[in-house]
Amino acid sequence: MSLLTIGTVAFDTVETPFGRAEKIIGGACTYISYAASYFTNEINLSAIVGKDFPEDEIASLRKRGVNLEGLEIKEDGLTFFWEGKYHMNMNSRDTITTDLNVLEDFNPVLPESYKSSKYVMLGNLTPDIQKRVLDQLDGSQELIAMDTMNFWMDIAMDTLKDVIARVDVLTINDEEARQLSGEYSLVKAASKIFEMGPKYLVIKKGEHGALLFYKDQIFFAPALPLAEVFDPTGAGDTFAGGMLGYLAKTRDTSFDNMKRAIIYGSAMASFCVEEFGISKLKQLTKEEIDQRVGQFSSLVHYTMH
Amino acid sequence: MSLLTIGTVAFDTVETPFGRAEKIIGGACTYISYAASYFTNEINLSAIVGKDFPEDEIASLRKRGVNLEGLEIKEDGLTFFWEGKYHMNMNSRDTITTDLNVLEDFNPVLPESYKSSKYVMLGNLTPDIQKRVLDQLDGSQELIAMDTMNFWMDIAMDTLKDVIARVDVLTINDEEARQLSGEYSLVKAASKIFEMGPKYLVIKKGEHGALLFYKDQIFFAPALPLAEVFDPTGAGDTFAGGMLGYLAKTRDTSFDNMKRAIIYGSAMASFCVEEFGISKLKQLTKEEIDQRVGQFSSLVHYTMH
Repeated sequence: MSLLTIGTVAFDTVETPFGRAEKIIGGACTYISYAASYFTNEINLSAIVGKDFPEDEIASLRKRGVNLEGLEIKEDGLTFFWEGKYHMNMNSRDTITTDLNVLEDFNPVLPESYKSSKYVMLGNLTPDIQKRVLDQLDGSQELIAMDTMNFWMDIAMDTLKDVIARVDVLTINDEEARQLSGEYSLVKAASKIFEMGPKYLVIKKGEHGALLFYKDQIFFAPALPLAEVFDPTGAGDTFAGGMLGYLAKTRDTSFDNMKRAIIYGSAMASFCVEEFGISKLKQLTKEEIDQRVGQFSSLVHYTMH
Repeated sequence: MSLLTIGTVAFDTVETPFGRAEKIIGGACTYISYAASYFTNEINLSAIVGKDFPEDEIASLRKRGVNLEGLEIKEDGLTFFWEGKYHMNMNSRDTITTDLNVLEDFNPVLPESYKSSKYVMLGNLTPDIQKRVLDQLDGSQELIAMDTMNFWMDIAMDTLKDVIARVDVLTINDEEARQLSGEYSLVKAASKIFEMGPKYLVIKKGEHGALLFYKDQIFFAPALPLAEVFDPTGAGDTFAGGMLGYLAKTRDTSFDNMKRAIIYGSAMASFCVEEFGISKLKQLTKEEIDQRVGQFSSLVHYTMH
C-alpha cells in the first residue's frame, strides 16, 4: 500500500568517537524512504534539494522504487546541510552547523497522486510545514505518523499541538515525551499525550530500545546490542521508515501488528548505525533483515519454568 | 539453599523531584536481604551498624527470616550515613554526604555457619573487604555474585580485578562496564570482562532495563514503565537480591534460569522504586510478585504472524 514520506534530504558531516564522514547523504526523508523501501515499492517522497545534490543519489532512490515526482530540485539553491558531533555517550550529540539553504523555501505541494497515500510518515520538520502537508491529503489515509523534536516544543508548541491532534502515531524520544506532557513518568506522559490526539505513542530511546503505548497497554522493543556502532545519525528515522513500511505492506494498524512493525523498525535501525550514513541501508537483503528480526526475538525470550 | 549477603546497612537521606526522606533505613545489604527474603529463608547477613541503629529494624529483618549472627553492632560508633539528591533524570544522582562511621572499621568475620553458604551476593564495598570475605568461604559455593562501582575502578582497580577474577557473576551499570573494559560497545565490553573471570555479566541500566551476557549469548530484561517512581535508591541492590534469592531457591545456574532470576530481580526492583527506602519491600505478597512478573512477560510479548 502507498506510503507518503516527507522530510529533509540533506548533506551531513558526522563525527563520532569512531571516525568522521564529510558531506555524506543524509536527511530524515532519505533514511525513512530507504528503510521503508524494503517493505513497499509504493513510496511517494516529498522533499527539496539544491542543484548540488548528486544525480546518482537521486537515481539510487529511484532504483529502490521511490517515486520522486514530489522531489523539488531548486536550481538556484544549495541542499540543506547539517554537521554534528557525537561524544562517547552516543545518545547525545552537538550540532556544529545547520545551513537550511533550500529548506527555508520548502513549501511542499503534493502531486495529485500522492494525496491518497494510505500511510503517511511526516519526518521532523517545522510543524507549520507538517500541517500544510496534512491539509493537502484527501482524507482516505489509514494511518498518519509524525516525528518531531524538542526544538519545535520550545518555539512553536501551539502549531505543533495542532499537528499532533491530527495524527495517529507520534514518535518522540523520552525527554521530548517528558517536555511535551510535563510528566516525568512515561506512563503518565503517554496518558497526557493521548489526550492531545494520537492513538499510539512511540518513545524512541536509542540504544535503550523503544516503547509503544496504546490505551493502557505498553510494549517494549529492545535495541540490539551491537559489536560495532559507528554512527547513530538517522537511526530514529530508519526506525520510523521500517515501521511505516511494514504497516503499509501489511495494512493492519492493530496493536499486535504495531508491535511487529516496531520490531522491524528496530531491526532496520540496528543496520543503520553499523556504518556511516545510508551506506548499509542501500544494500540489505530480505534474508539479512529476517535474520536480524529473529535476533530480537531471542534477545527477550525466556520461559518461566 | 543458603545465601550469604554482604554490604552496607545504613541511614540514607534521599531527595528526589518527588519528595524528601530523612534518615531512613538503607544500605546495599538491607535491600539485597529484603528482596531475597521473598525467595529463601536461609539468608546469612554480614554487615556492621552503630549503636544508633533501631532495634525494631533489626527485629524486622529477623522477622523476614534473615540470620543476623553476622551483624556486628559497634557500641561506640554510628551507623554509615549517606545523603543523595536525584535530579529530573533519575538515572543520575549527586552524593551530598558520606559519613563512613563504623564502616571504616568493617572487617567482616564470617560466623562458621556462613562459610558454606551456597550462594553469595557481595554488595558494593571496598574490593579489599570483598576479597577478605571470599578468603573465608569454604569453597563449596555454587555461585558467587558481586556488585561494584566506578569509584573502586578509579582508586583500587588492581584489587578489584583480583576479586572479579574469583566470582561467577559481575553486576555493574553500562558506564562501569565501559570503564572496566575500555570498550564502548557493551558486546565487546562483555568479551573483555569474561576474560577477567566471570561467567555471567549483568549490566544494569536502571529505567532502561538490564542485559545478561553469557558466552556469546545476550538476554535483555526491560524495566517496567511505572506511573510512580519515587526513589531509585537501592533498586540495583534489590534487583541483585531478587536475582540471587531466586537462584538460591531454584539452585540452577544455567543461562535459562539466570534469565528467570533477572526477571524476578527486575520485578523486585520495580517495587523498590515506588516508595522511599525499603517500605514497599517490607510488605509484599507472593501474589503481588507473581502478578508483576507476569507484567514483564506481556511487556515484551509479540508474535511474528
